[in-house]
Order: sequence, then C-alpha cells, then structure tokens
Amino acid sequence: MKEDAQPTQDALAFARQVAEAMYEKDIAAQKMGIKLTKVGPGYAVMTMPIHEDMLNGHSICHGGYIFSLADTAFAFACNTSNITTVSLGCNITFLAPARAGDLLTAVAEVQSQAGRTGICDVTITNQDGERVALYRGNSYRVNSKIVDDLPERR
Amino acid sequence: MKEDAQPTQDALAFARQVAEAMYEKDIAAQKMGIKLTKVGPGYAVMTMPIHEDMLNGHSICHGGYIFSLADTAFAFACNTSNITTVSLGCNITFLAPARAGDLLTAVAEVQSQAGRTGICDVTITNQDGERVALYRGNSYRVNSKIVDDLPERR
Amino acid sequence: MKEDAQPTQDALAFARQVAEAMYEKDIAAQKMGIKLTKVGPGYAVMTMPIHEDMLNGHSICHGGYIFSLADTAFAFACNTSNITTVSLGCNITFLAPARAGDLLTAVAEVQSQAGRTGICDVTITNQDGERVALYRGNSYRVNSKIVDDLPERR
Amino acid sequence: MKEDAQPTQDALAFARQVAEAMYEKDIAAQKMGIKLTKVGPGYAVMTMPIHEDMLNGHSICHGGYIFSLADTAFAFACNTSNITTVSLGCNITFLAPARAGDLLTAVAEVQSQAGRTGICDVTITNQDGERVALYRGNSYRVNSKIVDDLPERR
Repeated sequence: MKEDAQPTQDALAFARQVAEAMYEKDIAAQKMGIKLTKVGPGYAVMTMPIHEDMLNGHSICHGGYIFSLADTAFAFACNTSNITTVSLGCNITFLAPARAGDLLTAVAEVQSQAGRTGICDVTITNQDGERVALYRGNSYRVNSKIVDDLPERR
Repeated sequence: MKEDAQPTQDALAFARQVAEAMYEKDIAAQKMGIKLTKVGPGYAVMTMPIHEDMLNGHSICHGGYIFSLADTAFAFACNTSNITTVSLGCNITFLAPARAGDLLTAVAEVQSQAGRTGICDVTITNQDGERVALYRGNSYRVNSKIVDDLPERR
Repeated sequence: MKEDAQPTQDALAFARQVAEAMYEKDIAAQKMGIKLTKVGPGYAVMTMPIHEDMLNGHSICHGGYIFSLADTAFAFACNTSNITTVSLGCNITFLAPARAGDLLTAVAEVQSQAGRTGICDVTITNQDGERVALYRGNSYRVNSKIVDDLPERR
Repeated sequence: MKEDAQPTQDALAFARQVAEAMYEKDIAAQKMGIKLTKVGPGYAVMTMPIHEDMLNGHSICHGGYIFSLADTAFAFACNTSNITTVSLGCNITFLAPARAGDLLTAVAEVQSQAGRTGICDVTITNQDGERVALYRGNSYRVNSKIVDDLPERR
C-alpha cells in the first residue's frame, strides 16, 4: 500500500507489531546500524548511517551496504501482513555514491501483490534528498507467520 | 575473460597486482570476511563464511551479505584491467538460503566489454556446490586507475 | 523530467519535433500499432491495441509485445534531448496479463541522467487502469543526434 | 536441464510433443518468424530472421523483437514439463545491435526450479556467433497443463 492511502490506526499498529518482532530477530540489520523509522501496511522507512569501515576499494560506500539497506526495507514492507515473505531476487540501480558521514534513508512500498508473488520498490536517498539507489524486488509468500500469535492480513 | 581461456603468466600477475592493491583498500569487504582466492583478467573468485550475526529476521543469511559477496567479486573481476570500473546496477536472484556455518564462494566472470560498459556474471555456491545466488551486473569504466604506477590493459 | 514539472512550450515543442522525426523512422513500432500520444522532455506516453494475432501459446498477449511497447516509450522519453540514446538493458515485471481487445498505455519518465548513462521507468496500464507491467531501463548516450538540424538539449 | 545432460529419447519426445502443441497455438511467435529448432527437458533453441520492417528509429532491430525471441525461447524451455509456466518478469541486456538480414538464435536453459518458481537463462547470438543479448527470466508454475492428455513431468 502507498503511504498516502491512510491506513487505519489498527492497521498501523498491527504492521508495527509484526515489524518490531521481526526487527528484534534481525541481527544482521541491527549490526549494520539499520533502524526502522516508520512502518505501515506494505510500507517501511529505514535508515542507515555510513561509516569509514563501510567503504570499498574506491573509497565510496560498498554497494553491499546500500543493497542491504534496500533489501531490509523491502523485507519489512513485505512482511507487514504477518505472512512470511522472502525475496526471489531484485534489480538495483546505483545513481550516486554514498560517502562516510552520509545518512541514508530507504522508503519501501509494495507495488503489487497477486497470489504468492509481489513487487516492492525501494528508493534510497541521502541526507540532502539526493537519490542514491533504486531497488525493485520480487517477493514470495511462504507458509509461515512472523508472529505466531497474530493472524495473517492479506 | 573466461577461466578456461588460459591467460599468460604475465596477465595473471598483472591482474593479481591490481586486485591486491584494491583489496588492501576495501575495508568493507575485509570486515565482512570476504577473501580473494583467485584472480585473472576479467575473472575473480572470492569466499565468505556465514556467521550467526549475519542472519536476518527469518534466521537465514541476510540477502545483503550474499549480495555483498557477489558485488565484491564483480568489482574485482571488472577492475583487473586497472581501469577504475564501477557498478551501474545489477540483478540478483536468490536460489537457496545460506545458513550460519556455510562457506560461500563467488565466481565472477566478465561476459562482455564494449567501450565503457560491460556485463559481468557472478555465481555463488555453498560448500556443497549448491547454487545460492546468480548475479548479473552492469559495469561502467571511469577515467581513473586502481594502481597509478601500472598501465591500463584493455 | 516528471510530467508535473511543467516544461515550457518551447521545450515541449522541441521534444515533439525530435519524437516525430524518430517515430517516422520507427517502422517496427508503427507496424505493431504503437502510437505516440504525448511527449515532453524526458517523458513519453504511447499506446498499443492488442489483437488476436498478438497472443501466445497461453492465449494471452505475448510478453514480447508488452515489452515492445515499454521499450518504445523508453526510447522516445530518452531521446527527446536529441542526443541519440540506446538501451543497455532493462528489467520488466509482468503484473497482469493483457488480452485481445485491450488497449495498453505506456507512460515513460526519465528518472536519472548522469553523464552518458540514465534510468527511465515505464508503467504499462490497460484501459481499466490496471497495471500490466513495470519496466526499468538503463540508457546510454552515444555520439550522434536524432535530428541533425536541431541542437542537443542536455 | 543443460543441453549436455543427455536426456533419454523418451524425455526428448515428451518435450517435443508439448512444445509442438504450444507452438501451434503461439500465433504471435509464428507471425514474428520465430521457429523452434531444438527442444528438450528445460531446454529450447529458437531462431528469428531480422527483416527491414523490424527496425526502429535508429535503423537497428527494435529491442522488442530481440526480447520477443528471448521470451519465446524462455517460455518453450520452461513449459516442457507440461506444467503451464508463465513469466513473472526478467532482465535483458543488449550487447550488440541486430540488423536487417541477420538470423538470430536463442538458446534457453532452465537454471533452477524450486517449487513453483524457477530461473531460465537465454543467450541470443547472430549468424556470426556474436552475442546480441543475455536474458534471465523468472518463471512461475500455475495450476494447468499445456497438453491435457499428457501427464506433468517435474
């Protein structure tokens, strides 16, 4: 769902509950400094600061970290239904380099969901609003839940 | 160039010299535990062990680490010409999950180079030879060198 | 440029002049029934009706025709600068089938242009506004012009 | 399956039977001049001659036709199981232009099949063996068959 679709308070609370449970187990994202700043049904905003030890041999941020932020935001947006959803793969385009000291923000929005498969777009910008990367991911729903005690919301 | 094209000893030594200089500056790759095990003109093999702190909220290796390994192998294969080459973007497909304790190997081979742009494919397998991910990246040559004292080799 | 950026009348006329010259030579697009309905700087809208002879072995519109419409809209949006721009490749996602009798509309917008390379997104919808496909293409500027008598507009 | 895996005569005959039934209904492919020259389990080779009326505004073969050949070969390779398989989307990279008079050949090989989803790669070459395009498609199996009277072969 797009940010402007104005989900109900209940839908927002549900999405947040699932996302927080998922974040708690996502050691990789935590260790990379990725934070969840906003979440709703099919929607997530996450941030990551770039440090010196995230630079590659060209002295710019390693593409793997930029991808990791995008992929994490994708995962959080896709799993807010509480139906475990994984990535089949994706396409990422790098528009501008990220540098040490930058704070990147990823906005992920599910674009389409049909049966088990879906599409979720992520845009990454830096602290100046400049676009750093565009990511388009293919999601796939498997037969399990993120939070066992909660229902699925299709 | 494909692995079986049998580059000369001189070409191999040149590629290794560029790659080692690049690896030394690639703090991000080093910190992720990525190692360079083989390199030749347009060709690189790199490995990465998966640890507990690389797992995501589904308790499998975060896609960002798998991507990082692929993207690093891509970068090393593309830069063996000593012409600084960056990624415009790529496509990655996840075929099987990676788990804590796995040792992943990425084999990167430049498929095409025309003017400034090129294509480089990466296949990631685990210690059992099972394919974990397929990566296809678009490269772009910029106007600088990796090792200033060495020539470019087109 | 996005549709809402309101280009000047002069910029619109320039884009249209380049696009019309290009359309006149695009025998393939004409033969497929693709029409140019709107064009501006970095922006193009094109349509294509689906006929019985465009169906594949599953009795839905062959993906090749859907792609052709997207790729054509991409080309027209990218070339409005009058700098010959080709496709390096792209990613397309099919969201819903198209059927005989449908009228598809492709909206193409350049998202980014940096040096010779750029990104242009295309969304294809049917006559009911349902999204049929999402396309993201990588463009590359070569050293020639579409209309020799006109300048380049970067 | 890869070409060199040497399927049994029975498996080849089964794949051919399914492919021929599918080709008979694929009006779009037939009309584009695409021919099936070889087929086996998870494998298909198809050809397409390039004519003047397939050229675009740059006087080279419209990318839509090159894509159509790749997409068709993908479809035939993916459906040899007799389980109806559609495309979720794909990535295509254009390596060299095709021109009027060229004869293009597409070799499609399923790389991976896990549950409903799979990956199939297609390489397109011209009559001189030069690579024209690389295509990587995501397939999805739906609940129907190509030939009702034949079983499914997983």
